Amino acid sequence: MNGEYTDGVFRHTVMVRYGETDQMGRVHHANYLLFFEEARTAMMRTLGTSYADTEIAGIGLPVRKADLRYRNAALYEDVLVVETRVERVGPASVTFNYRIVRPDDDTLIATGSTELACIRMDGRDASLIRLPEDLTAVFTAACQAGSSEPPNSPV
Amino acid sequence: MNGEYTDGVFRHTVMVRYGETDQMGRVHHANYLLFFEEARTAMMRTLGTSYADTEIAGIGLPVRKADLRYRNAALYEDVLVVETRVERVGPASVTFNYRIVRPDDDTLIATGSTELACIRMDGRDASLIRLPEDLTAVFTAACQAGSSEPPNSPV
Amino acid sequence: MNGEYTDGVFRHTVMVRYGETDQMGRVHHANYLLFFEEARTAMMRTLGTSYADTEIAGIGLPVRKADLRYRNAALYEDVLVVETRVERVGPASVTFNYRIVRPDDDTLIATGSTELACIRMDGRDASLIRLPEDLTAVFTAACQAGSSEPPNSPV
Amino acid sequence: MNGEYTDGVFRHTVMVRYGETDQMGRVHHANYLLFFEEARTAMMRTLGTSYADTEIAGIGLPVRKADLRYRNAALYEDVLVVETRVERVGPASVTFNYRIVRPDDDTLIATGSTELACIRMDGRDASLIRLPEDLTAVFTAACQAGSSEPPNSPV
Repeated sequence: MNGEYTDGVFRHTVMVRYGETDQMGRVHHANYLLFFEEARTAMMRTLGTSYADTEIAGIGLPVRKADLRYRNAALYEDVLVVETRVERVGPASVTFNYRIVRPDDDTLIATGSTELACIRMDGRDASLIRLPEDLTAVFTAACQAGSSEPPNSPV
Repeated sequence: MNGEYTDGVFRHTVMVRYGETDQMGRVHHANYLLFFEEARTAMMRTLGTSYADTEIAGIGLPVRKADLRYRNAALYEDVLVVETRVERVGPASVTFNYRIVRPDDDTLIATGSTELACIRMDGRDASLIRLPEDLTAVFTAACQAGSSEPPNSPV
Repeated sequence: MNGEYTDGVFRHTVMVRYGETDQMGRVHHANYLLFFEEARTAMMRTLGTSYADTEIAGIGLPVRKADLRYRNAALYEDVLVVETRVERVGPASVTFNYRIVRPDDDTLIATGSTELACIRMDGRDASLIRLPEDLTAVFTAACQAGSSEPPNSPV
Repeated sequence: MNGEYTDGVFRHTVMVRYGETDQMGRVHHANYLLFFEEARTAMMRTLGTSYADTEIAGIGLPVRKADLRYRNAALYEDVLVVETRVERVGPASVTFNYRIVRPDDDTLIATGSTELACIRMDGRDASLIRLPEDLTAVFTAACQAGSSEPPNSPV
């Protein structure tokens, strides 16, 4: 599967589709939210959980808040790496942050974060509920792995 | 509401969004399926039915077949008129055809058709079912109105 | 044309397309950036300028920063009003903010802002340039109209 | 790179993104055109040419005609294989056909074809031109490889 996980950071590769460009000749800015989404769900699969299964169990994680900073234009057929980290785990939410780079010329393309709420998906009921224990455990471990000091201390 | 219905033809206006263009500077070809979809559901509302309500009743009309011919490029902020007709009503399907024109310079942009199947939407069950009677009546009336002779009889 | 402008606020109506929903049954969160974009370019037209013409003149306004808060789910065929204001005009940038409401049940759906940079569009050159004077004038007037005191003086 | 080419058939893998589903819980039908596009441009890269470079040389290959048959629903996170073949090479056009399968349960998801015109991209000039020789050679070879008899004849 596409993507590798090290020290709390998941690196996922996407290649820019033609249909993701706009007439300015660059990736249309809305598509970065799709890259973030693809990366975090790939991260969840790699961490041993699955967003698809979460929904089947009647629990949804809709995006409640998103922030994006566009640093440099990405172009058609660019190979981009989305670095994803778990930034914060709340009782009924989880926040991911992202850094999209283009390794070919070592350029920072975009950064951002998304905060996801945990809700019950039952018809029109969308009330806030606690994150399931398994998701909390997985996200918390990833969050701690990412925030720990770099392993440069003497052994 | 946007759109007017006369003699079996529903005319619905869309304006091209920036995000619908691609780096060729024209509307990306996949978006025409979205224009078709917007037009036929607006037509359904005008005809007194509603696709939203159809789904709430557990019945779906997924696209089973689509054909598109791209005649001339449409550009950002172009005002386009989608002319929609009911072409055929089957026991468990309905076919719409479309003609997209740009009135400003009287240019034909695209033509196409979509065939929709009628299915039961019940979890993973998606078996084919008969079109509900009210939809059959509405679609058949529109189909006949569109195929009738033009009103060229002497007054 | 769709949209009305009063006291610095532009109100633009969109109706949710089927293709804008996701399997959670609500508008996919990336689409709000498209609603914002449609609303601010409609606002520019209403204010007597045009983003299309700006690009033809070799000047682009790509989004440099975006923030979104999703308050309540919007559903298929919902009629939404995007209220757009000019929040800030810089020497080479302009910031819009947005408030999306569903008038039918008076619900706040989403809020957000986008900061646009002004760049020269000349092949791969995308260097920052000053906002053209006409855009500065138009945006500044809208910004001031929006920030002025409400007309609560005694008549 | 994703994709393998054998006997005129290019097999390219995509994984369904969340944002590609709609409220029916399946891949929205317009997205198959994006899967086709991603697959054929990946095929072009594998065959030693590049659609990006073609455009830089001032030549475009817009879609002129598209046909799609939706056979079975694809779902979120499904791994799909797009099999792409060159069906026909004309003096100023090329036609690809596609077969999308889900290997997990050996299900046919969709089939289709797209005919691309070869045009000069020079401002608003979009006149039809002959396919460049290198593209003709590459496409013709792929077309012949795909239409040749299966290698079961005695040598």
